Amino acid sequence: MGITRLFRRIVAALEDPNIRANALALAGGKAIGLILLLSAMRMFLPEPLHAADAGPSPEVNALNTVWVLLAAFLVFCMQVGFVMLEAGFARSRESINILVEGIVDTAICGVTFWAWGFAFMFEPGNGFIGTTGFFLKGLPETYGSTGIPLLAFWVFQFAFADTCSTITSGAMVGRCGFVGDILYSIGVTGFIYPIIGHWGWGPDGWLATMAVPFRDFAGSTVVHSIGGAISLIGSIALGPRLGRVFLRDGGGPPLPHNIILGAVGGLILWFGWYGFNPGSTLSAMDMQGISRVSFNTTMAACTGGLTALFYAYARVKKWDLGLTTNGFLAGLVAITAPCYWVSPTGAFLIGVVAGVLVIWAMDALEYLRIDDPIGAVPVHLVCGIWGTVSLGLFATGQFGLPTPTGVDTSTVVKGLFYGGGMAQLMSQAIGSGAVVVATLVVSVVLMYAVKATGTLRVSKEGELEGLDLHEHGMLAYPEFVIHAGGSPHLAASDARLMR
Amino acid sequence: MGITRLFRRIVAALEDPNIRANALALAGGKAIGLILLLSAMRMFLPEPLHAADAGPSPEVNALNTVWVLLAAFLVFCMQVGFVMLEAGFARSRESINILVEGIVDTAICGVTFWAWGFAFMFEPGNGFIGTTGFFLKGLPETYGSTGIPLLAFWVFQFAFADTCSTITSGAMVGRCGFVGDILYSIGVTGFIYPIIGHWGWGPDGWLATMAVPFRDFAGSTVVHSIGGAISLIGSIALGPRLGRVFLRDGGGPPLPHNIILGAVGGLILWFGWYGFNPGSTLSAMDMQGISRVSFNTTMAACTGGLTALFYAYARVKKWDLGLTTNGFLAGLVAITAPCYWVSPTGAFLIGVVAGVLVIWAMDALEYLRIDDPIGAVPVHLVCGIWGTVSLGLFATGQFGLPTPTGVDTSTVVKGLFYGGGMAQLMSQAIGSGAVVVATLVVSVVLMYAVKATGTLRVSKEGELEGLDLHEHGMLAYPEFVIHAGGSPHLAASDARLMR
Amino acid sequence: MGITRLFRRIVAALEDPNIRANALALAGGKAIGLILLLSAMRMFLPEPLHAADAGPSPEVNALNTVWVLLAAFLVFCMQVGFVMLEAGFARSRESINILVEGIVDTAICGVTFWAWGFAFMFEPGNGFIGTTGFFLKGLPETYGSTGIPLLAFWVFQFAFADTCSTITSGAMVGRCGFVGDILYSIGVTGFIYPIIGHWGWGPDGWLATMAVPFRDFAGSTVVHSIGGAISLIGSIALGPRLGRVFLRDGGGPPLPHNIILGAVGGLILWFGWYGFNPGSTLSAMDMQGISRVSFNTTMAACTGGLTALFYAYARVKKWDLGLTTNGFLAGLVAITAPCYWVSPTGAFLIGVVAGVLVIWAMDALEYLRIDDPIGAVPVHLVCGIWGTVSLGLFATGQFGLPTPTGVDTSTVVKGLFYGGGMAQLMSQAIGSGAVVVATLVVSVVLMYAVKATGTLRVSKEGELEGLDLHEHGMLAYPEFVIHAGGSPHLAASDARLMR
Repeated sequence: MGITRLFRRIVAALEDPNIRANALALAGGKAIGLILLLSAMRMFLPEPLHAADAGPSPEVNALNTVWVLLAAFLVFCMQVGFVMLEAGFARSRESINILVEGIVDTAICGVTFWAWGFAFMFEPGNGFIGTTGFFLKGLPETYGSTGIPLLAFWVFQFAFADTCSTITSGAMVGRCGFVGDILYSIGVTGFIYPIIGHWGWGPDGWLATMAVPFRDFAGSTVVHSIGGAISLIGSIALGPRLGRVFLRDGGGPPLPHNIILGAVGGLILWFGWYGFNPGSTLSAMDMQGISRVSFNTTMAACTGGLTALFYAYARVKKWDLGLTTNGFLAGLVAITAPCYWVSPTGAFLIGVVAGVLVIWAMDALEYLRIDDPIGAVPVHLVCGIWGTVSLGLFATGQFGLPTPTGVDTSTVVKGLFYGGGMAQLMSQAIGSGAVVVATLVVSVVLMYAVKATGTLRVSKEGELEGLDLHEHGMLAYPEFVIHAGGSPHLAASDARLMR
Repeated sequence: MGITRLFRRIVAALEDPNIRANALALAGGKAIGLILLLSAMRMFLPEPLHAADAGPSPEVNALNTVWVLLAAFLVFCMQVGFVMLEAGFARSRESINILVEGIVDTAICGVTFWAWGFAFMFEPGNGFIGTTGFFLKGLPETYGSTGIPLLAFWVFQFAFADTCSTITSGAMVGRCGFVGDILYSIGVTGFIYPIIGHWGWGPDGWLATMAVPFRDFAGSTVVHSIGGAISLIGSIALGPRLGRVFLRDGGGPPLPHNIILGAVGGLILWFGWYGFNPGSTLSAMDMQGISRVSFNTTMAACTGGLTALFYAYARVKKWDLGLTTNGFLAGLVAITAPCYWVSPTGAFLIGVVAGVLVIWAMDALEYLRIDDPIGAVPVHLVCGIWGTVSLGLFATGQFGLPTPTGVDTSTVVKGLFYGGGMAQLMSQAIGSGAVVVATLVVSVVLMYAVKATGTLRVSKEGELEGLDLHEHGMLAYPEFVIHAGGSPHLAASDARLMR
Repeated sequence: MGITRLFRRIVAALEDPNIRANALALAGGKAIGLILLLSAMRMFLPEPLHAADAGPSPEVNALNTVWVLLAAFLVFCMQVGFVMLEAGFARSRESINILVEGIVDTAICGVTFWAWGFAFMFEPGNGFIGTTGFFLKGLPETYGSTGIPLLAFWVFQFAFADTCSTITSGAMVGRCGFVGDILYSIGVTGFIYPIIGHWGWGPDGWLATMAVPFRDFAGSTVVHSIGGAISLIGSIALGPRLGRVFLRDGGGPPLPHNIILGAVGGLILWFGWYGFNPGSTLSAMDMQGISRVSFNTTMAACTGGLTALFYAYARVKKWDLGLTTNGFLAGLVAITAPCYWVSPTGAFLIGVVAGVLVIWAMDALEYLRIDDPIGAVPVHLVCGIWGTVSLGLFATGQFGLPTPTGVDTSTVVKGLFYGGGMAQLMSQAIGSGAVVVATLVVSVVLMYAVKATGTLRVSKEGELEGLDLHEHGMLAYPEFVIHAGGSPHLAASDARLMR
């Protein structure tokens, strides 16, 4: 309860105009300082040397490239799943908005990740940011020691960056203006994701180069916790949708307008996750690795879904589709960091815990009166943290790292439950904590900066009319007869609000 | 007519409480006996030897692994297609139910197939069941002589097992309780599919080790006939949906509530089938094989769809979308067994016959007053049998078996029409007959056992209310105005039944 | 304006019965003459020699085959995207029709492309048509010098041919009879696409063998301009849908009945395009090539979408989902020809221009009162031409051609802006011009021949009732309450027309 109270105080503080203005000024100043510092440092940095190493045969490199590209295409397919999931769980009057956002976030991400995002994230610089390779200029043909063409690695990582941005939009459904969406999307895919992502995945990121390196195989932290933390601040900065009554006040979230669409989208996300996790080996030659990752991904999704199904049934005596879907997604998010290093039993248990946590986290958001229409925070932030930490518990100590020609077991990753002591667990806690706190802080800067422009939230009239008509001039289903204002209980609530 | 009458007698007998009780006792006793026998036998079995063979190079094994994993992901994508197909062809009031079932069947399958299903099916034991490798413990890193990691092979086969379970749910749409669904799903993916599947695909399965081995390349029998036969018993055990009037009584099946969703799901199944069939080589080095299988799969789908389209048009003068979809699915099911061994002409003709058979089988079900909402029996059982037998007719005698490094043509498969005589045809008939009969028998045990628990069929009130509200507490489309009780003719029928 | 007037005169002339009859007789005579000539020539042609070359290792060939087959499956998945896009943008009363057409076009394409389409397109003959290999008989096991099995190459090219046919159906939505659809589909996939496609992609096609060869990497011209040009003639031959009021007459296109479905379909097309373009290398060993193509495909889609979004916003102050979707599709079509030879900057700019052109072309169609419900002409014809020509501007001169073992840079492709002068640009203009003009001419023959049979356009009653009921005996959404006649403004227009 202490934590909840603390958290609510933070929320309240964020809503206080004075505190917010001070925080904005402070954070803004720090950000400008950091950028100046980095620019200055860059002048004194030597051009990084990418020495050609002998490396694997062309056949092996080509096979690894095929693997990474096909995985990238599967990750791209997750966009299809995300927009279906989000639109299906939304009200019909805001579903076009979700589709436009999904497409535009992708397009913005493509441009910014080419221009500077990739450079910030994956090129050398310092522990906090990459400082070379803007517009991919001056970079060698293959990325690092992977043997993979730079452009193949870019396509794979673009699809990841895109995911992070789309997660955010899920928490902001129904009341975020479209100009505001464009602005925060540039902030997310252009700055927050690549810069903080550099800490964990950059060649010289400070988390990646700790004595016991922070491990996040496919991004429970780097992709999901970052996306989920931005979501949390986004939904707080926006405030709840008009007429949104929380469970403790006798209400509940609006009904999904087409949960069939939403759940099919969830299954497509599961399909795409088979690119996300197994592709992150960047090597098909580590054939045991890609198989183990595929197995663990499957297992955690299964137990996450089953756990949420039975837990929800125990509470309300209904077999809930929405919670089951969020349950398997929770399992998938959680297994994303540890998928390479855990056993089937580990994956099984990680999924089980995720299936419970996701429901607890949804309860907490209701209690805190935070309106996250899709469950982006419970799924991506909470289970992203859990998955990252679980690696420090369940890593078996049998597995090292994939290499272009197979595996490197000179350093293995071992968690607490397998005799590895606290070392890896501490690194995981540091990594997860640092990334989440940093993301929360810069998200406050971003979201309140966008809010200051007046574009973050649409007008009351626009929101009640629905974002689709207001921002996009269209209805999603013009031929279908819709209950006035959406579902019957929405109509009543809208009428009350318009008085 | 004789066969129809016989079949109707069997159906009637199954509905007779006395006969059923006796059959249950008999079958139950046999099952317990079998399990005891197997347990006893296991004690005397030596631990199986998995000698490491020199085998192909790491590059070749990695390429084959990439092929099998990507194929597995495509097979998983068939779940997306199945839930869309089934939900689209159902009434809106039971479509959430289909989504929950599809997800939960998958999750249950993941856990049981890890715990014991894979061991039953793919590990040595005797001709009838595998008896080692529970929880995949004690197994070597690669599966058999495939050179493929065990876990990659598991993911591929998990996706197959999942398919079998989902087929079944299609025949039981609209009136099956959710607890009943969980119970029969455990029966299907945990016991029936892996144990009977062992006969055809286990390393020492009795059908696989006959003098002229039974051939089922990708599972017309092992996946589709098993799934279809369980479907038949499931729909008989449940009985028709309330208010379902059959064609001979002047009625017809309820209208699909969203045939666009259903047909798009059908096309996604076709897409996923490109993993199902070509992936079953387990080898990309057999590059002629994977190409031939891809071609034949395409051709049979095309001619199955076209035949059903024109045949249906000849009968009702309408270009029927539902039958065309079931037509190409029928072609896909039929080509699944013979896809490796037939020529383009063979694939063409196998599809044509499947396109006719699927419509005849739908007629037969209407005549027998069996309510199979999705056509699971016509598509998967009937065309599964046809495809399996067709191999004994159309196998050209040019092709042997894929190996990790290419092909083995020391033994070729030759059918009746290509001068192979009756030998292969007999093996196919034995295999298909044994699997179908055994599945029907154990399905009776399973379905009537679940029925005895009172969970198989929902209450009359629950069914008329719709499974979605009754079991899942939700409506699929809360914002849309729906004709009372679904489509107008459903409303009238429901009103009549509630009197 | 001069061009617009010329074009409208051509349209008017085509609608004049006398001129049309003469044109038909003339074109028909030419076609018969050509066929006779080709048949005669064939007798004197030697059997083509497919000498076995030493070629790459089996491992390399297998890897390339895996690449091409998986790409083929992704291209097949575009069918899913197309039917969703077209059905979503249509009115509900004609959406079943779109699904049946999509499936049947695919099935017809499978049969004709096996029987003769592939032979016309990809086998030797003369510069204008292939004349060997009907039913793939007598062909070697691998295609040309690719090292890829013939059947794998067939599956890849079948999926391309299918695309061309489905594009056409998009322009003919809502008023084309189903028998007419079958007839023109045979014409498109059986004759127009493979014969004119032979010019650009046949081993001895006259455009492929010019001194400076015409380049069309993945088919901006061969697939998209051909499909788009047939679409144009198809929509002119059919005339607008009843009650279609054009923008200049104070109306506008009917509202998409489910733009969510449509836009999700668009994203699935983007996903499938990652098979279309990168797969066209036919070689994974050209790992820089497949990566560059994937990158450029992404970039042009992003900038096409963003440009259309902002340009549409500048005009109507709404963030339009339909135009944004057509914008990224325009970028994808445009980059299809030059994707292998341009830099990121080139891809960026090609997408930007496509995003503007697609909107201008939609304006032009409205102005010319041509009813193209899906925008097939703006996206596929106009941006197909732009993409083809853009190669002559933006090709950097660094890249040659992919080979089974890597790249061949003995001849590089260089455009005007990179110092290549006018040579490549002229070849591109000749190729695009010849293909478009020839396609327009033979499409006139085809469409007016089908029109002469009385099957091209349904009756007035059938059209107002909706194609779904009239041709397919079903409604897409029988449980949902639909505004009379579709959306409210449709109802009014239908009532007026029935008077």
